[in-house]
Amino acid sequence: MRCDVLAIGTELLLGQIVDTNSSWIGEQLAAVGIDTFEHRKVGDNLGRMIEALSEMLDRADAVIVCGGLGPTPDDITREAIAAVMGVDLERREELVESIRKMFGSRMREMPANNLRQADVPFGASVIPNPIGTAPGVSGEVNRAGRKKIIYAVPGVPYEMKQMITDHVLADLLARSGERSVIVSRSLKTWGASESGLAETIAHRVDAQTNPTIAFLARGIEGIVVRITAKAPTAAEANALIDAEDAELRAILGDLIFAVDEGTVESEVLRLCEARGWTLGVAESLTGGLVGARIANVAGASRVFRGAIASYATDVKRSVLGVTAEHVVSEEAARGMAEAAQRVLGADVGIATTGVAGPDTQDGQPVGTVWFGIAIPGLPTETVSTILPGDRERIRQFSTISLLNLLRVRLESL
Amino acid sequence: MRCDVLAIGTELLLGQIVDTNSSWIGEQLAAVGIDTFEHRKVGDNLGRMIEALSEMLDRADAVIVCGGLGPTPDDITREAIAAVMGVDLERREELVESIRKMFGSRMREMPANNLRQADVPFGASVIPNPIGTAPGVSGEVNRAGRKKIIYAVPGVPYEMKQMITDHVLADLLARSGERSVIVSRSLKTWGASESGLAETIAHRVDAQTNPTIAFLARGIEGIVVRITAKAPTAAEANALIDAEDAELRAILGDLIFAVDEGTVESEVLRLCEARGWTLGVAESLTGGLVGARIANVAGASRVFRGAIASYATDVKRSVLGVTAEHVVSEEAARGMAEAAQRVLGADVGIATTGVAGPDTQDGQPVGTVWFGIAIPGLPTETVSTILPGDRERIRQFSTISLLNLLRVRLESL
Repeated sequence: MRCDVLAIGTELLLGQIVDTNSSWIGEQLAAVGIDTFEHRKVGDNLGRMIEALSEMLDRADAVIVCGGLGPTPDDITREAIAAVMGVDLERREELVESIRKMFGSRMREMPANNLRQADVPFGASVIPNPIGTAPGVSGEVNRAGRKKIIYAVPGVPYEMKQMITDHVLADLLARSGERSVIVSRSLKTWGASESGLAETIAHRVDAQTNPTIAFLARGIEGIVVRITAKAPTAAEANALIDAEDAELRAILGDLIFAVDEGTVESEVLRLCEARGWTLGVAESLTGGLVGARIANVAGASRVFRGAIASYATDVKRSVLGVTAEHVVSEEAARGMAEAAQRVLGADVGIATTGVAGPDTQDGQPVGTVWFGIAIPGLPTETVSTILPGDRERIRQFSTISLLNLLRVRLESL
Repeated sequence: MRCDVLAIGTELLLGQIVDTNSSWIGEQLAAVGIDTFEHRKVGDNLGRMIEALSEMLDRADAVIVCGGLGPTPDDITREAIAAVMGVDLERREELVESIRKMFGSRMREMPANNLRQADVPFGASVIPNPIGTAPGVSGEVNRAGRKKIIYAVPGVPYEMKQMITDHVLADLLARSGERSVIVSRSLKTWGASESGLAETIAHRVDAQTNPTIAFLARGIEGIVVRITAKAPTAAEANALIDAEDAELRAILGDLIFAVDEGTVESEVLRLCEARGWTLGVAESLTGGLVGARIANVAGASRVFRGAIASYATDVKRSVLGVTAEHVVSEEAARGMAEAAQRVLGADVGIATTGVAGPDTQDGQPVGTVWFGIAIPGLPTETVSTILPGDRERIRQFSTISLLNLLRVRLESL
């Protein structure tokens, strides 16, 4: 089974937007064992869309078309697919109704343009879009003497992802008649370089072909070690993965901060909740990022008390009661972590203060960061580091480093 | 003149690396007025590389092949180009020498594999690579009855960029005889749907071909209206853009929140600073996102006092002094905005409280959000809305909506 990807949008060709959609789709296809051999981008031009889609269908069993399903006149993916299928568009009344409802729920009038989103090539199926107005489309076509399938999904990443995950992958697998199942597990690591990690587990990587082990560098989100196994059933694939998982954990230890969709913030919340502890944050250079990440976890309110982003120096004094002379210092980090406990009424208090740049502060270089961790029954701990990169990177790194530091401490209790 | 782009690398198809190279090249081509109508990615497979390159040369005047020039056996771009040109590879002694020198200067032995990088299709030219071992290649070929040109550049971004800038663009322009310049400007809007916006300015879009107007939906970052003009000089292109910019502003008014790289948070900081005002934030469902966005702007410390993410209800009472019975209410939003002024010692206080889900709160549905805006000399204003989407989206929308509300109010003073 071969499924290629066609991304639509003049803005992609002009570099106004980077096409991350086809990369993401390629990753998902690979994970379920479907080949993907060619990705293309073409602009919002009917002739070139039809030409590209036709050529791609000659070679692939399926093509996912991404983008061009919006309501504006330059969104012509529906027309291109109808042309390749050799059919007309028909307006589906049930789609008109659901698009109208979507606007109604936002208390906005539906512009007439949006009716175009209810047009579907005759004989094609609708892929539901529960979170946007653009329905997806799937249609069959005969090419090169065989039945091929076209899927059209929106270019908006979160709408696209939901349709691929909920619908397209399962449909592709059903059509491929693939009897073996491919299962992956991602061990997320933080604190080692890619080459260092690769050397550490090189003997495991070389030792086998099923499961396989791959490294995915995720920038500020660390490095993912992905174990992928192929077996007749999911249970057998998972058993292969479990065995390798145990081997890798024995080597990597607490470098692993989460598995699959897990995050360091969800781990921190889980570990706090297990002890019945609440959590408060005092932050400075991160301006609210630490609190924002924690609050993004559903159910955070059972543990998270709040975060005080004391950006101005005198706010550190007036709201947090920090008395340290220099606000980027061990004393300040300790004072802030303990203030997070006291002011926010939290069991665990964490804090970060530092210099995000572009200017130095108190004679301290850009990238200097202090962390404070206050855990019940233990002396407040402080850690300092010097982080590389620009303002945005330093702030993101500080956020993840602080959360990871707390995770490691809570796990060791 | 049409120049398309072919990116080489199995890792691009598998989503292990996002292909940013072709986007960057597309942007450069557009900037000098060369059309680019199709970009492709294929893996490190000789047959598919030859097939793709041949098809692309049938339609374009030039194709830039990016990647596959490295020293390892899977780097076969040289072979693919030789096959399409119908010639053999020849080893160039001057390249052997310069590659050897490059290793010498890094005090490393040259692996035998690297000699492959001295192989060039017979009759092709070498594009020098002053910063890496992989030389580029350019070769002419007759396709579809015309002389076409192939450029091969490395996949390493900084090596690729230098070759495109120093060599490829000038060569393309010389071949095209093109003298015009293309300039774009992005008007960033918030608060209208893409289709609504399209209808509002349809007469402007239809009225002209230079400048052109395009819509780019940026999800939670709003919708960009991009004006692109082509003229003999940058000054003339900018004059065309200025005229259209004025027309669009007369129609769109304060829907436009920023231009090009500007953001709503940088606008808010600029507007506050112009009046000598400081800014404080009290937030609930956003958990720190509002503060984090403000603090991400370099120089924020001149205006931003801090943010209090009062996640737990009793923190709203103890730290902010909010007395409202229900914490998702007009009264709470007003109390929080005024507390942001008082507790953080800020001139302007803004606040948001609401239900991010997954559960309802105080009988209010998920997506219910209240905003509070306290500006010196004005009564504190509150606004409520119901936002669509999941937890993450509601929190992001709340953040941008609050910042945009403040921008509109500050601009109207």
